[in-house]
Amino acid sequence: MSPLDLFRERAAALDAADPLAPWRDEFVLDPDVVAYLDGNSLGRLPRRTQERLARFVREEWGGRLIRGWSEGWVDLPVEVGDAVGALVGAGPGQTVVADSTSVCLAKALHAAVGLAPGRSRLLVNAADFPTDRYLARRVAVDRGLELVEMSPSDPSGLNADDVTAALDDRTAVVLLSHVDYRTGSLLDLEEVTARVHAAGAVVVWDLCHSVGVVPTGLDAAGVDLAVGCTYKYLNGGPGAPAFLYAAARHLPSLDQPLPGWWSADDLFAMADEYRPASDARRMLTGTPQVAGLLAVQEGAALAAEAGIEEAREKSEQLTAFAIEVLDALRLEVVTPRDPARRGSHVTVRLPDARGVTERLTARGVVPDFREPDLLRLGLAPLTTSFAELLTGLEILAEVLGE
Amino acid sequence: MSPLDLFRERAAALDAADPLAPWRDEFVLDPDVVAYLDGNSLGRLPRRTQERLARFVREEWGGRLIRGWSEGWVDLPVEVGDAVGALVGAGPGQTVVADSTSVCLAKALHAAVGLAPGRSRLLVNAADFPTDRYLARRVAVDRGLELVEMSPSDPSGLNADDVTAALDDRTAVVLLSHVDYRTGSLLDLEEVTARVHAAGAVVVWDLCHSVGVVPTGLDAAGVDLAVGCTYKYLNGGPGAPAFLYAAARHLPSLDQPLPGWWSADDLFAMADEYRPASDARRMLTGTPQVAGLLAVQEGAALAAEAGIEEAREKSEQLTAFAIEVLDALRLEVVTPRDPARRGSHVTVRLPDARGVTERLTARGVVPDFREPDLLRLGLAPLTTSFAELLTGLEILAEVLGE
Repeated sequence: MSPLDLFRERAAALDAADPLAPWRDEFVLDPDVVAYLDGNSLGRLPRRTQERLARFVREEWGGRLIRGWSEGWVDLPVEVGDAVGALVGAGPGQTVVADSTSVCLAKALHAAVGLAPGRSRLLVNAADFPTDRYLARRVAVDRGLELVEMSPSDPSGLNADDVTAALDDRTAVVLLSHVDYRTGSLLDLEEVTARVHAAGAVVVWDLCHSVGVVPTGLDAAGVDLAVGCTYKYLNGGPGAPAFLYAAARHLPSLDQPLPGWWSADDLFAMADEYRPASDARRMLTGTPQVAGLLAVQEGAALAAEAGIEEAREKSEQLTAFAIEVLDALRLEVVTPRDPARRGSHVTVRLPDARGVTERLTARGVVPDFREPDLLRLGLAPLTTSFAELLTGLEILAEVLGE
Repeated sequence: MSPLDLFRERAAALDAADPLAPWRDEFVLDPDVVAYLDGNSLGRLPRRTQERLARFVREEWGGRLIRGWSEGWVDLPVEVGDAVGALVGAGPGQTVVADSTSVCLAKALHAAVGLAPGRSRLLVNAADFPTDRYLARRVAVDRGLELVEMSPSDPSGLNADDVTAALDDRTAVVLLSHVDYRTGSLLDLEEVTARVHAAGAVVVWDLCHSVGVVPTGLDAAGVDLAVGCTYKYLNGGPGAPAFLYAAARHLPSLDQPLPGWWSADDLFAMADEYRPASDARRMLTGTPQVAGLLAVQEGAALAAEAGIEEAREKSEQLTAFAIEVLDALRLEVVTPRDPARRGSHVTVRLPDARGVTERLTARGVVPDFREPDLLRLGLAPLTTSFAELLTGLEILAEVLGE
């Protein structure tokens, strides 16, 4: 008898009581994946998206050709931006979907520096995702700012006090990830934004690991700029375009470093002088990928229909259940135990996390490995069932017992 | 009898003798488009791409999920880059496909400035595509350079002498479009590159309107940097990722302004310190769009199989035939009459070009309008037949006669 047998009934009961359970049928589920625990790296394929993309390729690209641009594609960055914005508490006209998260982040950081004249420091989490650190460092150099790397005082990740301790009247811009990509630690976006603003600085939030699973009020919190990823919990597909939010109060004078024909006031006028759009298109640069935009549109619609509050509730149950089982296996969970302080993935420290990830993957359980010793379990409320999660953890137990 | 009846037999004979004629069957052709003359804005959909994308969505994204990255997607920017590079005379390891053309151009321009220390001027064609001018101006401001806008001495576009006249020992970087997006005028890339180098400056070529239809030898000409578009003659689909070429001699020290995890030496190490890749990946930034990369891979393969020399030969015949018919209609052709001086589109100046474009489109003839008074006819050697072109011109004659 496996030490986890007692959890099987619990998982069945949780699934039976789960109001989001029917959403699983909206996704393509391959029988060879017995437990997909990496929806925070790449979300599953929605059936609707499969149909939408086939229709787009055949009828729109193949059939309408260049006319597709004037028949709707041209508005997609803003339209899909509004749909994604609604999921993070942003009113219309402040969000666009286009480019990679990294490119969006570069634009956001440069724009943020422009909003904080006379200040000299750019703050970043020393444990943040590589692109965030690399770009923060680069923007600091390019803009003549001093880079301050904040070190988390807590092994699970940076907390609000760590940020506060680093703030002073030299602070120009603070870049923060809402959810820590390794540990799953969640910052209080409203509280931290207020502290940054109290110090007279500008905040840029990276919502990559929270969009779609954590209720977020960008407008309510008065956030300045934010970026995020659509191929995780928004199921936009590999390399789907990212989103970039700029508060309406900043937009008319926002100075972003990559002006192109798509950020011009009149896209097709092709004017001699560059006049940036005064609306959200100001944040665009070049031609956006239409297929990716349509996939994000479908994924965002699914997330909206299911409901972010509902997704959060199930996400908390999933992560709590995972932690309970991992505790029973006596594994070292690095994710915060307070549900209010974590996102939708749970991370375990293991001496041979890389090898374990490989052995799990070979058995159809797909988690994620993060250097140097972390096994990351991403739990997607619309697609992860409690039974699936438990199966994955049972096989983890077997792999560790080998 | 239409004044163009005499051309009908000629068109049939040209199609019968066209070695590329069978390639047309490789593309999706909708009966409601009687003449597609805008393949230089958005190329037609290859049948193979339609199948490849359906397979990718269902089997790779849907079936392999995150494992797809390690099973091949991760190498696509460089692999597809090499395939596109081969079409413009670039040896392997110098080209990547990712981001929009505008974003690639921003990276190329900043990198080029870094290659020309001690020089103070950035040269751009005053009649170039908006993004090129906007970005050149922005980069000049950001890097403390003086922007020089070269005005074409010839109504059909900038020529080599216009460039030479603007060069001196202050010139840092020269940005040039190989083919003028409005008039179709083609610069001699080898000759102009040699002149820029003789002045001690660095050249960035925009190959948007030449890749796939004009034989180009980037390596042979010693070009420094180049960018280009894949959704025109490479048939990559709306918003397909662009390409960015940097000569191997520059790569190891190339400084581009958008470092991200994809340009790091070891993508998955997620190292504390940013160490840029020493190979072509150095030019990447964030996660590239996989669907777009696969579409470009198919489109580049089609172009390679058909042959660039063969495409050029047919393109010259198509543009010559178009000019002959337009002359018979007594229209004002602004495209150079010397085939060696033009790309693959032919442009006509018309008082009401916008209205004519609308009326043509309503009748299933799809050209392109460019402000203020230009009607642009894009001729794609793999998909445009002489009969199709003539049909489009006949309907143009009818529309003008109304």
